Amino acid sequence: MTTLTSKDIVRALKPLVGDGGALLADPLEMKSYLTEPRKRFHVPAVAVALPGSVAALQAICRWANQHRVPLVPQSGNTGLVGGQVPLSGTEVIVNLSRINRVREVNAAAGHMTVEAGLILEEAHKVAEAAGTIFPLWLASQGSARIGGVLSSNAGGVQVLAYGNARELTLGVEAVLADGRLYHGLNALKKDNTGYDLKDLLVGAEGTLGFITAATVKLFPIPEAQETALINVADPAVALQLFYLLRERAGSRLTAFELMNRFGIDLQLNYGLLPRDPTASPSPWYVLAEVNRMKGGASGALQAALEEALASGLVADAVVAESEADRTLMWAAREQMSEVQSKEGASIKHDVSVPIGAVPQLIAEGSAAVERAIPGVRPCPFGHMGDGNIHFNFSQPAGADPKAFMAREAGANAAVYEVVRKLGGSVSAEHGIGQLKSALLRQVKDPVALEMMQAIKAALDPNGILNPGKVL
Amino acid sequence: MTTLTSKDIVRALKPLVGDGGALLADPLEMKSYLTEPRKRFHVPAVAVALPGSVAALQAICRWANQHRVPLVPQSGNTGLVGGQVPLSGTEVIVNLSRINRVREVNAAAGHMTVEAGLILEEAHKVAEAAGTIFPLWLASQGSARIGGVLSSNAGGVQVLAYGNARELTLGVEAVLADGRLYHGLNALKKDNTGYDLKDLLVGAEGTLGFITAATVKLFPIPEAQETALINVADPAVALQLFYLLRERAGSRLTAFELMNRFGIDLQLNYGLLPRDPTASPSPWYVLAEVNRMKGGASGALQAALEEALASGLVADAVVAESEADRTLMWAAREQMSEVQSKEGASIKHDVSVPIGAVPQLIAEGSAAVERAIPGVRPCPFGHMGDGNIHFNFSQPAGADPKAFMAREAGANAAVYEVVRKLGGSVSAEHGIGQLKSALLRQVKDPVALEMMQAIKAALDPNGILNPGKVL
Repeated sequence: MTTLTSKDIVRALKPLVGDGGALLADPLEMKSYLTEPRKRFHVPAVAVALPGSVAALQAICRWANQHRVPLVPQSGNTGLVGGQVPLSGTEVIVNLSRINRVREVNAAAGHMTVEAGLILEEAHKVAEAAGTIFPLWLASQGSARIGGVLSSNAGGVQVLAYGNARELTLGVEAVLADGRLYHGLNALKKDNTGYDLKDLLVGAEGTLGFITAATVKLFPIPEAQETALINVADPAVALQLFYLLRERAGSRLTAFELMNRFGIDLQLNYGLLPRDPTASPSPWYVLAEVNRMKGGASGALQAALEEALASGLVADAVVAESEADRTLMWAAREQMSEVQSKEGASIKHDVSVPIGAVPQLIAEGSAAVERAIPGVRPCPFGHMGDGNIHFNFSQPAGADPKAFMAREAGANAAVYEVVRKLGGSVSAEHGIGQLKSALLRQVKDPVALEMMQAIKAALDPNGILNPGKVL
Repeated sequence: MTTLTSKDIVRALKPLVGDGGALLADPLEMKSYLTEPRKRFHVPAVAVALPGSVAALQAICRWANQHRVPLVPQSGNTGLVGGQVPLSGTEVIVNLSRINRVREVNAAAGHMTVEAGLILEEAHKVAEAAGTIFPLWLASQGSARIGGVLSSNAGGVQVLAYGNARELTLGVEAVLADGRLYHGLNALKKDNTGYDLKDLLVGAEGTLGFITAATVKLFPIPEAQETALINVADPAVALQLFYLLRERAGSRLTAFELMNRFGIDLQLNYGLLPRDPTASPSPWYVLAEVNRMKGGASGALQAALEEALASGLVADAVVAESEADRTLMWAAREQMSEVQSKEGASIKHDVSVPIGAVPQLIAEGSAAVERAIPGVRPCPFGHMGDGNIHFNFSQPAGADPKAFMAREAGANAAVYEVVRKLGGSVSAEHGIGQLKSALLRQVKDPVALEMMQAIKAALDPNGILNPGKVL
């Protein structure tokens, strides 16, 4: 779109990055900004700009918008769908890691304002140092940064109780394509003064603006967690157990995660678990957690499980009796994805369906992929309480990984067909980026796509923000 | 904007309302659609269209968009800011009360899909008949309808635990200005496939589309509520009590409402309460409620209150010992607004600030208005747990109501100045409509207004949907 050369662009941007900023154009220096976690995307960038302040970012956007230079917003570079890396090779990556201050913490009132470049784990520490929690926990929290976490509307393991990034955010500040600054920071639980711009920017994957700071919710630290690993015969039983626990624990139910025995066995085989955390062998397990606030009565999860055992709904379960027990149970859950890579290639889907349809999703999705690829080993797991399953398939034992991955498109089509039939989403947590933009055009309501395109054109008329992503 | 006469419009629309629909052009027949609760707005309409189906509504929009005929979306006509009644007199009201089916209820999975014309109280009954709750309770629930409740992002008395209309909605279906149908219904807790169009339509006050149906969340019925009316010396003590209860009860704290003695005394004087529901006289009170799920231990609120009493934070409190006690406490809270009209004129503000700033809001706002209008009687009350105060002022005792109301602009300016200084919102719950659109232009971030205008132009290029409202 621009007629400028890479040299022109670098020369023009260099003075714009501001105090504490930097502009990288050397391929070696740019490498870590171009290498994303799944190593699926390998397109170069013209440069990597690291603005030192919000004002510098505004100057960069103003210039880029005038000269039609495409920008790729990036913060921690942990996204799984290629949203934060180039698509055409003509883009400048604008990485916000140097805009990373904590602007304000009000622990008592339950909110803090942090900048886009702050690492998620640092945000956790800031909250905890103030005697509260910021309950957005992800596998990548050691490198993911607030800007990307919000731009991708990240979820994680406690969405069930606390909501995803969108629900945890009260207000945002953002730089628009032409450099204007949207002042949307606020600490208000209720504000009906116009359109919900905050929720439009959150989850837009950097296509509508750069989120530069956010006011997010903080919560009181629960006094304790009750955690159990529960044998269930199949996902339909898991669903009944979910209904039972929700009725008993209400919003105190903070996690309800599904796993199968295959994934546990793999972890034991590869030495990822020091011992089997389960009560006894079972085809499926649920990891459930209930929190207890200060002064509250303990034993809520235990009591509900006794009822489930008495009624025959579940046959066996183990309740964590120490923090070490709990850590082991969570390790079994969190290593589910990693261990599959040790067992060869795997095909992954991050999908959601209405909670009541999860058993059907797993049954029909597994059967469809097994028909397409005989011997494939389904390993669906994840946030069942949110209807969100990481629907993974390990290659047949001993098969050739490349030959298996060559059949990925067929497996995807089979899974997405079931998801579609059940009214589900082909990207529950990870977003669209460049990986799923073609898929989105196939599955999304055409009027929704038209609305999105109209909004994109209204807020970024020159199309310089993350072009080709999402839409 | 249109060159058509009223007769032309009526003639053209009549065949478009569909089976079960109606078109009213007779002033007497239109009257109830034009008369809004506060009787502040008195502009006529060209006609009132009552489409019998979503397809009929689409036909009306297609035609109106072609002919530049402005439409005013309306459902229960209970809005307090004139959003649902005409502004210029050239509009056609399109009332969705005949599109009112319950499309689906899935109580176990926790969602139902209902149409825009369903009365909120009917939605409650549908949820309860299925053994669940739809926890959005408003004073106007007997006449408010789902379309308006969502379009105004209504709140109510349990936002603290369950969220406002936006947070209670999973997906919406909407007819756009040109008649296209947005298929956004879904029952997904997680869906990261593109922009958050649902939250853009919710709270847009009918300026971006007609919400025709919504999938909303249902929750398990708590086994019991623990309710107390607690004496607090002032709003600062109420704030400390809120922090204490939130730490002890977490998300089980479903209500935290502030009231003053003045409002209770008025209700007793006017015979609105059979007896004083409080423990003893106090300048301020908090109505707090904690829910208890099935099988849970009781006494959580009592235990937290004993701690507050022991530490000297509060001096007295009464815990409801029966449903009758609880009903009386809630009556005292819910009659706060109504009773002020018996005591003469009152000036009202629906504002919010960060929760920690509520005491300052009340102190400085009251002082400012007392300076402007000596003898005025402040009666701030409401959803303190959400930072949302209905900041009302009763006229000086025995003063002339008209002379008092003539000073409304000064009182408004005084309150909004404090709200602004504290980073608050001039419309926490009730929206902008036509009442506050000029105010919005003064107080809102100019970039936010530009973004809103760009989005409006993108989705309703001919500006036929609720022109002059919000923006």
